[in-house]
Amino acid sequence: MTAIKYDVVGIGNAIVDVIGRCDDAFLKARGFNKGGMQLLFDADAVADLYKSMGPSIEISGGSAANTIVGVASFGGTCAFIGKVADDELGRIFAHDIRAAGVTFETPAAKGGAPTARSLILVTPDGERTMNTFLGVSPELGGGELKADMIAAGRVVYLEGYLFDRDEAKAAFREAADIAAKAGREVALTLSDGFCVDRHRHEFRKLIKEQVDILFANESEITSLYQTASFDEAAKHASLDVKLAVLTRSAKGAVIYSHGKAIAVPASPVAKVVDTTGAGDLYAAGFLYGHAKGHDLETCGKLGSLAAAEIISHVGARPEQPLDKLAREKGVLA
Amino acid sequence: MTAIKYDVVGIGNAIVDVIGRCDDAFLKARGFNKGGMQLLFDADAVADLYKSMGPSIEISGGSAANTIVGVASFGGTCAFIGKVADDELGRIFAHDIRAAGVTFETPAAKGGAPTARSLILVTPDGERTMNTFLGVSPELGGGELKADMIAAGRVVYLEGYLFDRDEAKAAFREAADIAAKAGREVALTLSDGFCVDRHRHEFRKLIKEQVDILFANESEITSLYQTASFDEAAKHASLDVKLAVLTRSAKGAVIYSHGKAIAVPASPVAKVVDTTGAGDLYAAGFLYGHAKGHDLETCGKLGSLAAAEIISHVGARPEQPLDKLAREKGVLA
Repeated sequence: MTAIKYDVVGIGNAIVDVIGRCDDAFLKARGFNKGGMQLLFDADAVADLYKSMGPSIEISGGSAANTIVGVASFGGTCAFIGKVADDELGRIFAHDIRAAGVTFETPAAKGGAPTARSLILVTPDGERTMNTFLGVSPELGGGELKADMIAAGRVVYLEGYLFDRDEAKAAFREAADIAAKAGREVALTLSDGFCVDRHRHEFRKLIKEQVDILFANESEITSLYQTASFDEAAKHASLDVKLAVLTRSAKGAVIYSHGKAIAVPASPVAKVVDTTGAGDLYAAGFLYGHAKGHDLETCGKLGSLAAAEIISHVGARPEQPLDKLAREKGVLA
Repeated sequence: MTAIKYDVVGIGNAIVDVIGRCDDAFLKARGFNKGGMQLLFDADAVADLYKSMGPSIEISGGSAANTIVGVASFGGTCAFIGKVADDELGRIFAHDIRAAGVTFETPAAKGGAPTARSLILVTPDGERTMNTFLGVSPELGGGELKADMIAAGRVVYLEGYLFDRDEAKAAFREAADIAAKAGREVALTLSDGFCVDRHRHEFRKLIKEQVDILFANESEITSLYQTASFDEAAKHASLDVKLAVLTRSAKGAVIYSHGKAIAVPASPVAKVVDTTGAGDLYAAGFLYGHAKGHDLETCGKLGSLAAAEIISHVGARPEQPLDKLAREKGVLA
């Protein structure tokens, strides 16, 4: 039997974010769905959009990768599995996640598609609209899973965005199997309403059969259960999984466990600068608390605190150590 | 005769900054000169230092390039001449400077050294220590100068860092010649005390013979004239050039013109986050004011205001439009 070595092992897209500012008219002129994520499949479309964007900064991203770096920032031990290419952005991604203290051993792919990038447009209200070119990232398959690593994690955390190609879907089921056999927990984030829309049936099957902890926001959970009512969707979720963590932006989060619901308010933020990574960091705080055996309310508070830190600056990686912040705010002793 | 098309044409290194945080012990252990700039000549040394650095962000930099983007942010018309490679960082540099509204037409070099990068370590006090790998950047030569562009600028602004290889030195003299023949002004920034130290004699010759406006900080100007006294160095400078703009960090700046000195205090800053680009942006404000015919005190205030904006956040490119900021602060009408 494998000993526990990691609090959380994440599996997701390996992406470098390219973050620039724009106004609402820029989004409207291009027909972009403000606050959403669209995939760009064509390298020319990426180049065109990049050309029209204002000055930008490059900073490592990726939904589950952000979460894992957040858990590490709280002091948790973590590993990440995700695919980069052997190029400059790939080296940046690998450097940043390792520099955050996360074990990252997935080999860089040579000679194929480039490392994924997400062109993120931030409007003056701090809302982010993402245009993601996935490059080599979705080519993650069973061969890269590393069973030993997954079995050594208290929780394996799966990123819904990656649940698209058949190979990645199979890899998710395989990872969940490995975790279950080792007596570990499986967590999943739904990532995006459109993503849920494309794979609703398979997501529901995966969740019902193999997921212990489900993270979703309002639009994702209502899309999953095809209902307009948040409460009704939440009820469905609470029957399907042990723990459903449902976030509602400024309205805070509701955690469903064993038929009981706990509401945790959002942490106050002086100025919302960039919402990129809010959900990812909420999951980070929650998972850290959960892995360390804290009660659900504390887990929720850690999530709110991490989300508040991330939306107060540009980029989805913490700018200050989250363990220190949690102690300053009195959430951790 | 060429018509004026640009307020300022800059010639300098084309660099992408890789900015991460570290503590003072990290600098001490490596024997780095805090607040200074050292050149890394070996790709392995760059890789080693990068590996030991914490999570970083990538943001376009380069001393004169930062200044030119600053002038554009005030509403000035600008062009930049500098050399990148045909690689990912080169595309990032070109995108960002063009997205700031600057004309940038220097072709990317293919197949040789990569685009320059500066690994910048920021300590908790906001001071930056730079480790620069110049890659293809110093290979700028006379062939890339574009005489038409230089002759179309009110001021040509030369970056001292680039004044190192014989080819670039010759290119500087050529650019100054073109500007003088077109009846334009030549500005030079000394960039770095060690840089001055390596080329003192040639710098003094260039300044005396071809420079109208000289930008320097305390350590650079005292190194240039080999005197411990700032006042004495300033006196020398005021005899060599029409306009000497000498910055002294928190003590503000002194502007010497026609035997008179004007002191301009530094603008207040709530919290110094990262001093990268402070001198570059001081020059931006001053040059914008000068190109638009403002009096010297206003030029100095525009410099202080731009420097204060840049040190209040990470990176050496403005996060808010400097023209708007100058109007809000009542420096411009």
